[in-house]
Parts: sequence; C-alpha cells; structure tokens
Amino acid sequence: MNVTIGVDVGGTNIVCGATDGTGRVLRKLKRPTEASAGHEAVLGRIADMVGQIGEELEADGRATSVGVGIPGLVDPLKGVSKFAGNLGWRDIPAAKLLSERIGLPVFIDNDVRMYIYGEAIAGAGRGYGHVLGITIGTGIAAALVNGGELYYGHNAMAGEIGHVRMDGVDELCACGLTGCLETVASASGMVRQAKKALREGRTGLLAERFAGEALDRLSAADLSAAMDDGDELAAEIIVRAGELNGRALAAAAMMLSPDVIVVGGGGALAGERLLGPLRKELYRLLLPDFRDGLKVVTAEHNDDAGIIGSSLYAAYRSGLIV
Amino acid sequence: MNVTIGVDVGGTNIVCGATDGTGRVLRKLKRPTEASAGHEAVLGRIADMVGQIGEELEADGRATSVGVGIPGLVDPLKGVSKFAGNLGWRDIPAAKLLSERIGLPVFIDNDVRMYIYGEAIAGAGRGYGHVLGITIGTGIAAALVNGGELYYGHNAMAGEIGHVRMDGVDELCACGLTGCLETVASASGMVRQAKKALREGRTGLLAERFAGEALDRLSAADLSAAMDDGDELAAEIIVRAGELNGRALAAAAMMLSPDVIVVGGGGALAGERLLGPLRKELYRLLLPDFRDGLKVVTAEHNDDAGIIGSSLYAAYRSGLIV
Repeated sequence: MNVTIGVDVGGTNIVCGATDGTGRVLRKLKRPTEASAGHEAVLGRIADMVGQIGEELEADGRATSVGVGIPGLVDPLKGVSKFAGNLGWRDIPAAKLLSERIGLPVFIDNDVRMYIYGEAIAGAGRGYGHVLGITIGTGIAAALVNGGELYYGHNAMAGEIGHVRMDGVDELCACGLTGCLETVASASGMVRQAKKALREGRTGLLAERFAGEALDRLSAADLSAAMDDGDELAAEIIVRAGELNGRALAAAAMMLSPDVIVVGGGGALAGERLLGPLRKELYRLLLPDFRDGLKVVTAEHNDDAGIIGSSLYAAYRSGLIV
Repeated sequence: MNVTIGVDVGGTNIVCGATDGTGRVLRKLKRPTEASAGHEAVLGRIADMVGQIGEELEADGRATSVGVGIPGLVDPLKGVSKFAGNLGWRDIPAAKLLSERIGLPVFIDNDVRMYIYGEAIAGAGRGYGHVLGITIGTGIAAALVNGGELYYGHNAMAGEIGHVRMDGVDELCACGLTGCLETVASASGMVRQAKKALREGRTGLLAERFAGEALDRLSAADLSAAMDDGDELAAEIIVRAGELNGRALAAAAMMLSPDVIVVGGGGALAGERLLGPLRKELYRLLLPDFRDGLKVVTAEHNDDAGIIGSSLYAAYRSGLIV
C-alpha cells in the first residue's frame, strides 16, 4: 500500500490525514490553526500532527511523503508560500521548513489545485482524460488535469478563472480589478450581494429571517434554504451566480475542450439551485460539438477533500503516481 | 539533417515544401487547389507535389514524413478531415489516402494548430515554455504548446477562442451562435462591419475610396491604410477588434498563464494598429502577477508559415521532435 499524508491548512483549522494510493482515508486529525502565533508555531503544529498520524499508521505501513495545501499564492516548485492572507504568511519556505522537521519529502501547493487533483484522480473526474475543475467558495479558482498531469503554466499561476472580467458586474474585487467573476458568483460574493440588498431595504423571506443584527450571520446555506422556501432575492442571486459561472466556464471550455467539468467548493453545496443555471448557460454558449461531449458533475469528496487531494498530490509530486 | 515535408491546403492554392528540423525551407511548390474536381483529385495533386519535392530534395536527404494542414474540423488522431467548407470535404480519411499514395507516414491536423506549432517551435514562441498562439484571419482560433507539446483536449477540439461570446456583440455567427468573437474581431469580421457601415451611409475617407461597386473589393489591408490616413470608421473597427481580442485573451491567459502570446494570421498584418489596443485591453484586465510576466508578440513567419508549421508538425507527430 502506497501511504502518503495530506495536510489542509485553513485559516481556522488544520486537518491532517493519511490515505492509500486510491484516496481512501486511513487516519485523520484536526486542530485549530492559531495562525496568530506565527508561522513557526503553525509549522511546528503541522509537524506534530504528521508525526502523530505516522505513529498511528504503524499497521498500515510508513508514509513516504507529505502534501500540504495552503491557501493563497504558492510557488509549488520552490516550495514557498508567497502570500496567504488569512495565515499572515508572506514568502515562507514552508516545504523546506516542514521537511526538516518531519524528515520526509514535503510538497506544497495552492489548496485548490490539490483539491481538484484529488477529484481528478480519485473523485468525480476519475477516468476522464481532460478534467477542468472549479471551486466556488470564498473565491473561485480552477485547475486542469490532463492524463493525470496537473497543468501549472508560467510561475504556476494557471487557474485564475475567478478574476475573469464579467460584463454587467461592476464590483471592486479584493485583487484590485473590477467586475471579477468571484465578486458576485462565489459563495461569499452571493452572501455579500444578499446583505447589500437587504441593507438597502429589499423585502421578502430573507429580510424577515435576517432582520437587524442577525444579518451578519447570513450564510450561503441560508440563501439556498430561502430559495427553496420561495424567496425571490435568494433565487435571483443564486441563479445569476450559476449563470455567470456557466459563462466563464463556456469560454474556458471552448479554449480547452475538457471531457468533464467538476464543480466543487462550498458553493457546490447549493447543488442544482446553482448547477442548473450554470449548465443551462454553459450549454447555451458552447459550440454544438462541445455541448454533446461535455459533462458537468459535482465533486465527490466534501469533508475529507483537503486530505485526499493533498495526500494524493504528495504521491504525484514524489513520482509515485505516473 | 531531419527533412520533413509540409503541405498547406487552402481553398485557392496548395503550398508544399520541405524544411529541415529547424524550420528552414529547403524547397517549395505552389499549385491551384481546384477543389471542385473533388477530394480524390486534390489528394492526387498533393501526392504529385510531395513526389516532386522529394525528387528535388535528393542532395538534402530523404524526407521521412509529411504533415498536411487542412482548414476546418480535423480529427488528427484518426487522420480524418471531418468538415472543410471551402474544400467541400466531409469525413475524408485524408491521412490514410495520402499515405497510400505517397508511401510515407502522413499526419493531418487543423491548419491553425500547425501554424501555431511552427511558431512555438521555430518562430516567435521559440524558447518559451507555455505558448498561447492565436490566429486572426477569416476566423479566430488558438492553440497551446507546452514544453513543445501541443494541447489537444477532448476530440482534439481545443482552441475555439473565436466562438467565445463577447458582450456588446450581437452578430449571428456562421457557427449558429450569436456574439462570437470572430464575427467582429477577425479580419473578415472587420471588413464585414466596414461594408455594413458604408452601406448604411457612413461617410469619410473609406466611403470616398470604396464608393459603389468598389465596396465589394474592400479588404482588411484597405482598413489599415484608411486608418493611417485618418479615417475614423476604419480606426473604430480596428481598435475595437484589438480590444475584443485582448479581452478574450485576458480570460484565456488567467486560466492558462502562458509565457507568451503569439498573434498571427492575416489580421496580424494590421500590426500595432490592432496589437496596441489588444495589449492595452489585455494588460488592463490581467491580475498584476500575470501582467508583469506575459509577452505579446507577432508571428515570425508569414508566406512560408503553412509549410514550416506542417513540416515541423510532421516531425513532431512522427516522434522526431521530443
């Protein structure tokens, strides 16, 4: 059995686990990130967790490498976390620092790329030659896996579909550009729009449910629930987000001709509410030859997606998956 | 010397030539296509031309394979021309039929893919890891060459950037979709818009130069000349085409993070008139990290581009370039 360890470093929690070569989770652990303690403390905690998982693994065999998914900008070849806003990291050579502590090869990359890799190899994209994956969460990002190989592009920056300029969108994005897809079509973009509309006096079910200070607690799941109960505002926002994602994906798909599009991330939990309009707009804008062959599916892994992706990624980078 | 033969099959002429492994043209020939005589006659003519080039090559060594660029839809793996409107071909197994006549391995593909491949290996994209090429001609199409490898996608359909839906464009495209990039931003799209505006009574230099029946002869080169002489309509059309191409390329570039964008095809002959607005819009819409690293250059090869691309492609497909 080919055992590798995957780590998913979030702003709130670190999740660490071991999988076999097929993405089956053997062991896992979760601890608070406590990013405010600084990167040395966080890396120390990751090393401890990897050590503990390693001990618990005894019966299943020794892990051979570790993959660590880090949010934000990562240089996977140099092993450097270039910028991770919610961790407060800038230019941290995380792969080297962790490898010294752990005594195993450590590979880092952007968490989205690992997630899509996991889905392509051992999830909803399994068996397809060209997998285009998109995560709709706090932001929107994509990755491409061809014949089992991740596509990186210049400086490993490929996949920034969330910052494609969309017509009819005029919100300023955190990146400095205006009209980026993720400002309105990500999970947080949908929530932001709902809050704005409610603050501006929009009435309806959502307004009743989240009156006053309750508005701060409004989540993407609440939008789905309100849409199911007939709220117009929630439906408008989710449908538009689906259509905009479908539109950005249509442009990407005609350029790349994938076999399958895998939709993941928190936004995918909206299910057919979002995917219905996404598919409809996507197929409407595709050339017929593309329309007929292209499937759109949701990601298979949810809770363990981070571990599965990063551990399979470790196997990939260390040459165990060829 | 690694000699291969390239053939470019256009609606009007067939150009056939031999190159060495660096893309240097050793011999070439040109004959009318006479497509109306049917595909057997055209394939026979191609085989004759390849034979003649082969004889003339004696001193330079024997050609080892033949690449044939065909317009329209091609299945490069099966070697079938699926649909070539201006040749009247549908589902012609051209690679097999030609190989039987010529006695050498024959590889066919879409002419654009071959052209971009030639530019990536032995033209403006030489030395770059990730080359995104676009041809702006009768239509608009793209191809991607990564580390010397062409990207094909599902059914080898990748590269259809010309059919991305552009906002503010509402023309019906020959493909059946509406608002496709190529309806207004291709060389023929620009000419079509100029003719339409002149027919609707738009005045100016272009209107004076192409009054009455002369309008039918208006070409993309005439638009460039009129723009240089201060014509507003010509400038509007070319600048808008540049901006729309820049916009479509920005979306593709953030998804793919190429090292360089190579712009070719007849539209590239407009030079900085088109490329200036293209670059400006592209850089305006890119994330800063992409902006800093991405070059935009024009294709190096013009007249011999078809031969160079298809002959180098033959070497690539037969495993001589690795």
